Amino acid sequence: MARILGIDPGSRVTGYGIIDDGAGGPVLLAWGCIRMDMDHFPDRLKRIFDGIQQVVAEHGPEELAVEQVFMHRNADSALKLGQARGAAICAALTADLPVYEYSAKQVKQALVGNGNADKAQVAHMVKFLLKNQSHMELDASDALGVALCHAHHQQTARRMARMQAAAR
Amino acid sequence: MARILGIDPGSRVTGYGIIDDGAGGPVLLAWGCIRMDMDHFPDRLKRIFDGIQQVVAEHGPEELAVEQVFMHRNADSALKLGQARGAAICAALTADLPVYEYSAKQVKQALVGNGNADKAQVAHMVKFLLKNQSHMELDASDALGVALCHAHHQQTARRMARMQAAAR
Repeated sequence: MARILGIDPGSRVTGYGIIDDGAGGPVLLAWGCIRMDMDHFPDRLKRIFDGIQQVVAEHGPEELAVEQVFMHRNADSALKLGQARGAAICAALTADLPVYEYSAKQVKQALVGNGNADKAQVAHMVKFLLKNQSHMELDASDALGVALCHAHHQQTARRMARMQAAAR
Repeated sequence: MARILGIDPGSRVTGYGIIDDGAGGPVLLAWGCIRMDMDHFPDRLKRIFDGIQQVVAEHGPEELAVEQVFMHRNADSALKLGQARGAAICAALTADLPVYEYSAKQVKQALVGNGNADKAQVAHMVKFLLKNQSHMELDASDALGVALCHAHHQQTARRMARMQAAAR
């Protein structure tokens, strides 16, 4: 079993979610959003860094899953997003969490079975898989989506290892 | 007097430089480059975060100066640069250093007196102002450039404050 932290970093809001990935399927532990409303950009980085460190200290995840961003609509927002992402990942790295990155396509494929699924379908599957129908902001459900994608990949890897061991 | 850390973050190389800004003018204390040669991007973030934390622990700067990046040639490299910048700034924030940002134009204006000066002129003035003629990589001299720009702005602010106090 592994406890997984998923994050969806943004320059104004960073979503996070924590699941336990066990034999009985994934279990939802916590989710939320870190809001960075301040004007001074370094203050926002500090908020996200402290916020993720706090989530890690509180829930003790063992692995970090984060969506890989390949391209972005414009360079200025990519730079801001990058800084937020760097701050969030560093906060997890200070607790020695290994970092796993997945593309949006991989997340959609793992959750919906279709790499071109839309955000609403992903959010729907997140709630379905985690048996949670309460209101959840998109940033938080996206964070849980990448955590579930990681859980799915790890389960597949373990199954493959068992099959290979049995075939020997 | 203030001890200033200047950094020039990049996704492959991050330059840093430390100066003491005292009554007798700026004094060079240390400079160098942190190289992130690893393929796994989170490993590079960890290297830069740890590297800047180490520089801070070793030299005890009180303020961080970093170049503000407004735009970038493409979104993908902006995202990578942003993450590196976020990691470097977070490392300084963990030591509670206040962060000051200056545009490239402000750095050039402060050092060369011309906001459109080229990199070689900035590097030349860095060496001249810090009375150091030894070989210095551009990443390190850029980092010292933004530290000197910050020192210049702080000196001007102090001078203004004294003039205002005297005029009362």
